[in-house]
Amino acid sequence: MALNASLSASGTRQLQSLLPLHKTSLVPSRSLCFFRGLVSKFSDNTPFPSRFPTTTAQAQHTSTRKMSSTTQLRSLNINNINPHVKEAKYAVRGELAVRSEEYRAKLAKGSKDLPFDKVISANIGNPQQLDQKPITFFRQVLSLVEYPPLLEKEDVLLNQLGYKTDVIERARWLLKTVGSVGAYSASPGAPGIKESVAKFIEKRDGYPADPKDIYLSAGASSGVNTLLHIICASPNTGILVPIPQYPLYTASLSVLNAKCVPYYLDESKGWGTDLEAIRGAYKQAVAEGIDVRCIVVINPGNPTGASLPVEDVKAVIDFAAQEKLVVMADEVYQTNVFKGKFSSFKGVLRDMQKEDPEKYKYVELASLHSISKGMVGECGHRGGYFELCGFDPEVQEQIYKFVSISLCAPVVGQCLVEMMVNPPKEGEPSYELYKQEWDGIYNGLQKRATALWEAFKEMEGVKCDDPQGSMYLFPTITLPPKAVEAAKKEGRTADEFYASRLLDATGVCVVPGSGFGQKENTLHFRTTFLAPGTEWVGNIAKFHKEFMGEFR
Amino acid sequence: MALNASLSASGTRQLQSLLPLHKTSLVPSRSLCFFRGLVSKFSDNTPFPSRFPTTTAQAQHTSTRKMSSTTQLRSLNINNINPHVKEAKYAVRGELAVRSEEYRAKLAKGSKDLPFDKVISANIGNPQQLDQKPITFFRQVLSLVEYPPLLEKEDVLLNQLGYKTDVIERARWLLKTVGSVGAYSASPGAPGIKESVAKFIEKRDGYPADPKDIYLSAGASSGVNTLLHIICASPNTGILVPIPQYPLYTASLSVLNAKCVPYYLDESKGWGTDLEAIRGAYKQAVAEGIDVRCIVVINPGNPTGASLPVEDVKAVIDFAAQEKLVVMADEVYQTNVFKGKFSSFKGVLRDMQKEDPEKYKYVELASLHSISKGMVGECGHRGGYFELCGFDPEVQEQIYKFVSISLCAPVVGQCLVEMMVNPPKEGEPSYELYKQEWDGIYNGLQKRATALWEAFKEMEGVKCDDPQGSMYLFPTITLPPKAVEAAKKEGRTADEFYASRLLDATGVCVVPGSGFGQKENTLHFRTTFLAPGTEWVGNIAKFHKEFMGEFR
Repeated sequence: MALNASLSASGTRQLQSLLPLHKTSLVPSRSLCFFRGLVSKFSDNTPFPSRFPTTTAQAQHTSTRKMSSTTQLRSLNINNINPHVKEAKYAVRGELAVRSEEYRAKLAKGSKDLPFDKVISANIGNPQQLDQKPITFFRQVLSLVEYPPLLEKEDVLLNQLGYKTDVIERARWLLKTVGSVGAYSASPGAPGIKESVAKFIEKRDGYPADPKDIYLSAGASSGVNTLLHIICASPNTGILVPIPQYPLYTASLSVLNAKCVPYYLDESKGWGTDLEAIRGAYKQAVAEGIDVRCIVVINPGNPTGASLPVEDVKAVIDFAAQEKLVVMADEVYQTNVFKGKFSSFKGVLRDMQKEDPEKYKYVELASLHSISKGMVGECGHRGGYFELCGFDPEVQEQIYKFVSISLCAPVVGQCLVEMMVNPPKEGEPSYELYKQEWDGIYNGLQKRATALWEAFKEMEGVKCDDPQGSMYLFPTITLPPKAVEAAKKEGRTADEFYASRLLDATGVCVVPGSGFGQKENTLHFRTTFLAPGTEWVGNIAKFHKEFMGEFR
Repeated sequence: MALNASLSASGTRQLQSLLPLHKTSLVPSRSLCFFRGLVSKFSDNTPFPSRFPTTTAQAQHTSTRKMSSTTQLRSLNINNINPHVKEAKYAVRGELAVRSEEYRAKLAKGSKDLPFDKVISANIGNPQQLDQKPITFFRQVLSLVEYPPLLEKEDVLLNQLGYKTDVIERARWLLKTVGSVGAYSASPGAPGIKESVAKFIEKRDGYPADPKDIYLSAGASSGVNTLLHIICASPNTGILVPIPQYPLYTASLSVLNAKCVPYYLDESKGWGTDLEAIRGAYKQAVAEGIDVRCIVVINPGNPTGASLPVEDVKAVIDFAAQEKLVVMADEVYQTNVFKGKFSSFKGVLRDMQKEDPEKYKYVELASLHSISKGMVGECGHRGGYFELCGFDPEVQEQIYKFVSISLCAPVVGQCLVEMMVNPPKEGEPSYELYKQEWDGIYNGLQKRATALWEAFKEMEGVKCDDPQGSMYLFPTITLPPKAVEAAKKEGRTADEFYASRLLDATGVCVVPGSGFGQKENTLHFRTTFLAPGTEWVGNIAKFHKEFMGEFR
């Protein structure tokens, strides 16, 4: 197992005072493995669901045990496959998610054994799995690009199926642009769609955007994968990643055998970025010889839900300019903002460049967006894009080549990107319905977020900021010492223990804070506020009361 | 630049006698770089299209030149990014492809400067970019899953839009299975669709298949990427790859910093596998300390078009059992067979296991399929699957986790996989049209392949096997010494020179054999036979005659 996988020495040292029991060497200790995105740790005796991602604990167990005779007869076994894949942890679809699906299957088969009759998947931001309806305009257009002969029946579409003329026009335009949605597009995406994205960015930020700097991707994840592949040049490359973070980053860094340099977000400032924390993490990493090249910022935040004020964005860009770091701005929740205003990194960077061209001229920014979140919520279609600013043209050539190897992003997803950035405008036939659906989803999210937050406020030992953005709340929980003890006995962290009990009691699946990273002696969980109704919120409150009673 | 990137020492040595001018050390020499998937090499003086993948030559040039002042001001430059990405070559979308797109754009703007009025993209297997029409049943169903409210207008669908009842039923079933096509599915794919795939494999091979061993992917490329990520554990891991090969394999191995162990296909046997060549390549690699773990077979072949006889398949499996190698069977062209019969690796393996259970019990096979090729041709939808046989369950858990990091394959692509493996059956309302469309595409492909082959037979110095399978012909060309000289002056191989001239003269874009690897002193090119009409075939013949005349 490579020891230099994902956590910088500075990260380890930074945690030294917080984690007094842990070794300070770079040897991965079980207790640090949340920096590789781990959600769940098990006692070695815990029986394993058959298809559950292996934990570090289990891997260590495996590597020392006697191999079975069948293992010896195969080419591949758990001890000889890619160690960097093995080290990667991916919380959001970990043990609890697998168990929740088992419960769902059981209920679907009519089982009456469980103390609940519905599973609420509050662990994944998967809007259409829950209540969110697709936007009509988007899907009408897609029905036409999928089956273009419908375009020959305009009067049926208009008079009997309720399609509007702008739906038909958009479908014709998209088909002209992509040819067939069944054909590969150019590797970085269909040129016409990239032009639409550029126009959108121009309008959003008030500054020009160039289609040649835009790459359409299969969701933002695939964009992150591309960018990290380019940036990570050796096991010594370091990437500043916010903690708590979306585990895609640490998992990808594990697989790439590069170093995660964690910096803590400031819970006391509503999970904003804290420049001192960033600088501290950076300096220590550099002092240890790590080649820190990039800082990741997720805004609005995942899992925190924070929406960064413009000052925070500025401070990060200024720091990146100073230290020559690539800024990777994960802005997939840019329309899920309930408090304040979204400030795009691109817009703020251009403002700063206007004020001080010399200082900020060469800042390298990659900003990512996606059709998976926001009011669009089309994650199953796997669409997104990233825009590059300030990148060296030779580096861009390599990015172009890299994306060519996987041919192109799904073309239907590309079409959805086009419609996301260029929706019906006021005065156009589909506008009214579009606006109504958009507002309905937005208001629904805000209402549910508020209801959930109100419920959390009433719960003993639970503290939660008011909803700011994205689709998550990330409350702090303070659990009685007896619960912490009971968790230890099960070989779990207290937040895992709590989330596991919550799932078993209510069918509500959340992700424990340890899956994203959190400061020692703090406990959290992440829940989406996508699920309809308020009954499940009541169930959480009821469970919480009973849990606290049991372990008081 | 890491020197152990993609070519095993045995590969180098194997070529020693064939490539007398080359160094035999592991230092990548320019002339060996086709093993990293290179298509095009340039003289350092050739002006570069702005977005063209860097060649080794160019990279070497770059790395020694003085960096510009702006390069110093950025975090990333061509000399400090991931060297393994830099080394990767991806021919199919290389220089000629880029230039052909520039010609296409020029023609679209009404330019009269070019000696042709149409660009024929015979370089990519992209059926729907050319003449191939989507299958009606597939697309009608997709129109409904994209916009489910249409299902409430059954009478309009049936009576005015020509949809059949089985289209409606299938759409309802798919929607029940996936929920919404806009929602993430389970990481390895929607369970109901995996069940359909299992049934298809059972029917095809006559042996059971288990849905839990099936993983839906974004085309076969993404499946190959997953499998290689698991298998490649260190720079010393070796993968046997056929030469000529589809450059996805060498490109992925470069990025993963693992070793390509090339084995030559036997052109004299219609590009079949040659067990002696495989054994020779394997033994030398092992003797050099390489940990050879896997053998890749592409059947029907890409770029060769070969369709393997069952004996070849058996021989590979037998060898893999003997040497404990994973077999990676790329079977995306399984329905594009014009000569003989497709023998699936899974079916042959099960036959062999029945005859000698002890010997073949633990053979690990991964077989891949795709919606991109065959009569389906839906590459823009990015769908596919791989089935695992004989894999260790702990290794499968890691595969499960790895695919979770990219969330799931596009759900519409998954729906197409379902329809590909479970098309309308005889007696069902959509069957007749489906059969007619399927046969039309199949016969069209065969007819075009034959026309192309007939033309090649007439061309001086061109030798080509009759069409067997996939969607390619891969003729040998013998060019006059003067042409080879002229190519050298341009810093190109002779086949690149030929293909470049062909494009400039006719607008027909093919891929030179050096992009796939070929024996020294042999020259080839790969062309698809997807383009409609015969005019372009005539243009190739005319160009060839003139070219031969010019350089005689």
